[in-house]
Amino acid sequence: MKFGVAMFPSKQLQDKVNQYRKRYDAHYALIPPHITVKESFEADESEKDSIIEYLKEVAKNHRPVEIEIKKVSSFVPNSQVIYFKVEKNEQLQAIHDDLNKGDFYGENSHPFVPHFTIAQGQTSQEYEDMFGHLSMIGIDHSETLNKISLCFQLENGMWQVSETFRLGSEE
Amino acid sequence: MKFGVAMFPSKQLQDKVNQYRKRYDAHYALIPPHITVKESFEADESEKDSIIEYLKEVAKNHRPVEIEIKKVSSFVPNSQVIYFKVEKNEQLQAIHDDLNKGDFYGENSHPFVPHFTIAQGQTSQEYEDMFGHLSMIGIDHSETLNKISLCFQLENGMWQVSETFRLGSEE
Repeated sequence: MKFGVAMFPSKQLQDKVNQYRKRYDAHYALIPPHITVKESFEADESEKDSIIEYLKEVAKNHRPVEIEIKKVSSFVPNSQVIYFKVEKNEQLQAIHDDLNKGDFYGENSHPFVPHFTIAQGQTSQEYEDMFGHLSMIGIDHSETLNKISLCFQLENGMWQVSETFRLGSEE
Repeated sequence: MKFGVAMFPSKQLQDKVNQYRKRYDAHYALIPPHITVKESFEADESEKDSIIEYLKEVAKNHRPVEIEIKKVSSFVPNSQVIYFKVEKNEQLQAIHDDLNKGDFYGENSHPFVPHFTIAQGQTSQEYEDMFGHLSMIGIDHSETLNKISLCFQLENGMWQVSETFRLGSEE
């Protein structure tokens, strides 16, 4: 089955991001707004316990992370994804690196650009219109993320949170 | 905001339940298949930490629960909900009772009937047809549930898992 690791923000930020995703994100119904810290990987259900142990250890070794969002950006020309950019953040990078340095289901294939997707899955023409519109959004938001979440994908494509791990927790 | 407490089963069982929900459950897109152990309740976001502490304590005091599903049933005439009935289960009842005995956001308004909803939100005529069809499903499934999950509802109606708590865990 497919697993991934994400960080979910406050209800307030999720509701804000969803206002845009509802209209512009083809994956809107499959997963709530999140920062991906480990892209989806294939593992057998029997490996779940060792995945959980690994994540518990990673969570223990990091503190809660203050994030800041100041603008809308896009991955064009690599992909027509528009997102709320999370400002460069060493703590977040360190969590990502622990999950992608090679001893936990492979290395990352792209450099880590922390973000909340607001639009994807549109045609090129639609993309131009959307980016013109969305790049005007005024956003200035900060908050603290205090956990990482192990997710897995159901047959219908929807992602579900399986376990959560508090950052900086001995538990 | 609205919170609730649920127990989510294995991917295998979720996929099976979703086969039916996809066609018959109006709430299909809002939350994955689950057993509700605490109906939705209103609480301020500032109360979340104390809710988490309470649930951690409840989880610690119970062991993982073996559940068994043998048949399809319905809440008619009270409501036109069709579900996979979870066989009577003292451990599950005890978890439910700890969350509904009155000192944690009120008592339960209905007796606890543990179940996985497969159909709801249809007209009376549709209900008759559906129940005729669904009551024929042969099901005989057992598995162990090892955690309770705190969920909250986003503005768009979708429920998200906020924190998970392992049953029987000192952590």
